Amino acid sequence: MVTPAFLAALRASLGDTPVLVGADERAAYAHDALGVGPLPDVVVRPAHTADVAAVARLCHEHGVPLIVRGAGTGYTGGAVATRGGVVLAMDRLNRIIEIDDVNLLAVVEPNVITADLQRAVEARGLFYPPDPASLEQSSLGGNVAECAGGPRAFKYGVTRRYVLGLEAVLPTGEIVRTGSKAVKNVVGYDLTQLLVGSEGTLAIVTRITLRLIPRPATSITLLATFATIDAAVDAVTALIRHRLVPAAIELVDGESLRAVARHVGQALVPEGCDAALLLEVDGSAAAAAEDAVSAAAACAEAGALSVDRAATEEERQRLWTVRRQLSPALKGPGIAKVNHDVVVPRGRIPQLFAELERLRQRHGLRIAAFGHAGDGNIHVNLLVDERDEAAVARAHVAERELFERVVALEGSISGEHGIGFAKAPYLGIELSPDEIALMQRVKQAFDPKGILNPGKIFPEPTPPARS
Amino acid sequence: MVTPAFLAALRASLGDTPVLVGADERAAYAHDALGVGPLPDVVVRPAHTADVAAVARLCHEHGVPLIVRGAGTGYTGGAVATRGGVVLAMDRLNRIIEIDDVNLLAVVEPNVITADLQRAVEARGLFYPPDPASLEQSSLGGNVAECAGGPRAFKYGVTRRYVLGLEAVLPTGEIVRTGSKAVKNVVGYDLTQLLVGSEGTLAIVTRITLRLIPRPATSITLLATFATIDAAVDAVTALIRHRLVPAAIELVDGESLRAVARHVGQALVPEGCDAALLLEVDGSAAAAAEDAVSAAAACAEAGALSVDRAATEEERQRLWTVRRQLSPALKGPGIAKVNHDVVVPRGRIPQLFAELERLRQRHGLRIAAFGHAGDGNIHVNLLVDERDEAAVARAHVAERELFERVVALEGSISGEHGIGFAKAPYLGIELSPDEIALMQRVKQAFDPKGILNPGKIFPEPTPPARS
Repeated sequence: MVTPAFLAALRASLGDTPVLVGADERAAYAHDALGVGPLPDVVVRPAHTADVAAVARLCHEHGVPLIVRGAGTGYTGGAVATRGGVVLAMDRLNRIIEIDDVNLLAVVEPNVITADLQRAVEARGLFYPPDPASLEQSSLGGNVAECAGGPRAFKYGVTRRYVLGLEAVLPTGEIVRTGSKAVKNVVGYDLTQLLVGSEGTLAIVTRITLRLIPRPATSITLLATFATIDAAVDAVTALIRHRLVPAAIELVDGESLRAVARHVGQALVPEGCDAALLLEVDGSAAAAAEDAVSAAAACAEAGALSVDRAATEEERQRLWTVRRQLSPALKGPGIAKVNHDVVVPRGRIPQLFAELERLRQRHGLRIAAFGHAGDGNIHVNLLVDERDEAAVARAHVAERELFERVVALEGSISGEHGIGFAKAPYLGIELSPDEIALMQRVKQAFDPKGILNPGKIFPEPTPPARS
Repeated sequence: MVTPAFLAALRASLGDTPVLVGADERAAYAHDALGVGPLPDVVVRPAHTADVAAVARLCHEHGVPLIVRGAGTGYTGGAVATRGGVVLAMDRLNRIIEIDDVNLLAVVEPNVITADLQRAVEARGLFYPPDPASLEQSSLGGNVAECAGGPRAFKYGVTRRYVLGLEAVLPTGEIVRTGSKAVKNVVGYDLTQLLVGSEGTLAIVTRITLRLIPRPATSITLLATFATIDAAVDAVTALIRHRLVPAAIELVDGESLRAVARHVGQALVPEGCDAALLLEVDGSAAAAAEDAVSAAAACAEAGALSVDRAATEEERQRLWTVRRQLSPALKGPGIAKVNHDVVVPRGRIPQLFAELERLRQRHGLRIAAFGHAGDGNIHVNLLVDERDEAAVARAHVAERELFERVVALEGSISGEHGIGFAKAPYLGIELSPDEIALMQRVKQAFDPKGILNPGKIFPEPTPPARS
């Protein structure tokens, strides 16, 4: 589909903007964090919205797939050119255009790194809460495309709560603006919220207006350990019953705790501990102190083995080790980690962990689970030796059973990572044929030829090849 | 379009469900709070989702307009049958199905009255924040259709923040479910958020899953008065600079204050006062007390003439009088009140009030303005003698100038009330032709024959007749 005529037209319309076709250059844009994907045919690095519009118009005209790529930290292959075509690498659109501390908003280009914006606004006493684990690498445009969450989502909500407006290029080349700088807007359909979480399949975001909030004055971290997952979940229920709203309630299971201990070379939790809760309470100094006491009491009430409270920033960092070292601890040579971010109503977390135990037993699998207990959003990692084909096959069976159980618990197969191509075969577990057909009609309203990020979200017959 | 054959088919498919065609019965469903609209041809009062689906299928098949009506408290004619057809009166779908205080959510049918849900959840220590002025009459389904706000939106956000999932009937008759009981969900497009604020033009909501939060322990109300609007807005800016987040920051202008004083028969604010701020701070007892002191200091710093703090519930109700009595105070025999809920970035409220002064001078109009200053969302009321045709015409010119100025200030022509048919002629002031065309394609994805709430949101050639 990428013909010499198409390439010539692309180069002619883009002037100085790089159009890369070398194998090495294309290889650099073949994968995201999932690690699977074929080479794109072409990579374009636009410098302006006008470049993006020119590329979209040409791809639409020639029927060439167009895939938008931010920082490539996604877990579901959303930024990968599964059907070849043009990858639009947004890395040059990386300016913070405005931080407005009267109207509490920021205007950014899509490839500003999440943590860079956070540091810039925190220096002015403001706060941009969404904190996906990849925040030092992930781009805000990617966060918008996936509707990224993170630990603080329990109190502060996910990315969509902070997106006031977008500038975006339609796959047919028109530039549209959605929302505004006003915090309320009910003029026509809320296309801003429709684009958030649409995984780069509806439009190409070129500018983002984000709502900010005042930075909390104080934050206190607690680590509570428990003999069982059920006891830890009881503590979460007790917190809710006490009407506490911690900024973060992170749950880590025994398998994960042991992996981190091996990885850092020291025990981090007491003997007999099979679950930990990492809690962060924030607000004014008085409010945070009050909440920390109540949170510790709720954990004790649920039978905590230990409750540690960080008195210094150094201690705070030490307590967060059990959570922050999880991702590297679960990686290993030859270990295929299948990472799913399922979500259930939080009171059903015990049923979810009971299902994980059943899957461990039935399929002989190592499963490590941790995540955002306040939101019922648990990262389930199936850990298998990638050379063991039988184990890989059993993991795939377990995966489908997990998704079916989560939907039966009135939850969802993805809370943060999106569908991409990796979860597309499972979409029908959660959505009915009528619901999928409706979403496909919405897709057509934006992208009549289906050129933008094809093969994502919706099931398709053939899986992509490994490059 | 409503033929005897259609009516017969409707009756046959609905069994005991009332199908009303009497003139009096239809007249009861002709208006909303805007007070303008023709009679529908038929009124159906469904008892179940299956009834709704049956009506939708028949209307789709016969090409009959279908209009969903909640409590009829809307200000833009969204529930009015401007092209005749069937009004679906949702008043029998009024059950609170579930309040779940472990998962902090409620499941309701669409015609539960907003305040009834609030009382039910507050009795259990929970909180449903959205508080439109009509909350004692408005239905949650209507709140979802319009994305209702209210004073507490500054701290707690508007209705969309609380909608986790919906059951809805498509205009073609299929029943779909969007979202889930999980607080995070990124599976496919966020149709939940697309339906919120879609003014009953995309689907018919039959069940709503709402997120709840813990009820704040304490709430403190303050009333500050100022010599000028600019001084009051300076106080708002000072609050923001002090990083305070009151639950409500309501601004009332001099014209409005004088109208309330006439209406209740006593002066409520000091001599020389031309603006007032009604502030509510909430949280734990310690946090609220701390914030009340800071808020009072910020008002004093901005030159407040007076700052009163309610010590008792009775005093609190007295302070709220200036805000709560506004709507009745601005009504009067023969007075046509054109009420617009424009919104600007909050730092630009002074420019908005400067524009109102210009409009008063240029067009010889009485204009009373008040609203949610924290959100920059100001209710602008053009008050004209309805028999004075020249004044009514001048008000219409002023209306358009107001909308143009608001958009130039990077705001929006509606923050809470929606577009309906009343603001449809002005849509093009805020949205480009490409943006309107895109929204119309989204509409077609849901409603290929355009039967659901036709003539709303999008401009059409002929305005509806007065019934």
